[in-house]
Amino acid sequence: MDLLSDQLWAVGRVESPLTDRDAAPRQGDEGAPQAGIVFHPEMRDAMADLRVGDKIMVLTWLHQGRRDVLSVHPRDDVSRPRQGVFSTRSADRPNPIGMHAVTIIDIAGDVITVRDLEAIDGTPVIDVKPLLGAVHER
Amino acid sequence: MDLLSDQLWAVGRVESPLTDRDAAPRQGDEGAPQAGIVFHPEMRDAMADLRVGDKIMVLTWLHQGRRDVLSVHPRDDVSRPRQGVFSTRSADRPNPIGMHAVTIIDIAGDVITVRDLEAIDGTPVIDVKPLLGAVHER
Repeated sequence: MDLLSDQLWAVGRVESPLTDRDAAPRQGDEGAPQAGIVFHPEMRDAMADLRVGDKIMVLTWLHQGRRDVLSVHPRDDVSRPRQGVFSTRSADRPNPIGMHAVTIIDIAGDVITVRDLEAIDGTPVIDVKPLLGAVHER
Repeated sequence: MDLLSDQLWAVGRVESPLTDRDAAPRQGDEGAPQAGIVFHPEMRDAMADLRVGDKIMVLTWLHQGRRDVLSVHPRDDVSRPRQGVFSTRSADRPNPIGMHAVTIIDIAGDVITVRDLEAIDGTPVIDVKPLLGAVHER
């Protein structure tokens, strides 16, 4: 495969009571706790317009993911047939990017607190984007 | 900022009639054409369970994005105040990752065809994920 010449930056890190990948919920809406996103101080201008109540997509780098895995049993259930990882949300995949739809419930300095984030403590955050509403609201 | 030690792979490339970033629609549902995603042959097992009709999220690396930009006028409209890029979908951002919700309309070998993809020709694809339904359907 082609290696991209550009490299990813960690724009922040997840701060969470979850420390064990195997014990974490599979998705944010399956019992994940509230968690902090601690932005790098250089990101202050990029995060300046985030507001409490905003629904955002947080992209993370699932640093414990196995990058050589191309198919998995969905939800680690061996009674289910293996599926190609592009049809699953497995953390094991060629580029282990996590995608988390969350709501901001607090902002204090460089830290935002969100609900329902299943990423474990220390997970690098690589991007934050607004969830889009209707075309006329953009 | 922290550079992540892992590097991104291009798992595929966009094949599109769009060649000029400035002429491309801002979002897929604002008049984007249908486009192909040509997967790397090594990704065959990862894409094996994609099906026509699937709604997927395609993540791209917007290789023409400016990574030193932290705030922008939304939609390049200078009458609108600058906003931090984490509150916008600007392609200029520290990690220029594009997020595109599309529907698969054809699959032929290593190529899937999707509707409404605003990324330009040649854009590297870094991940594909299913859009999730209700918890009980996973």
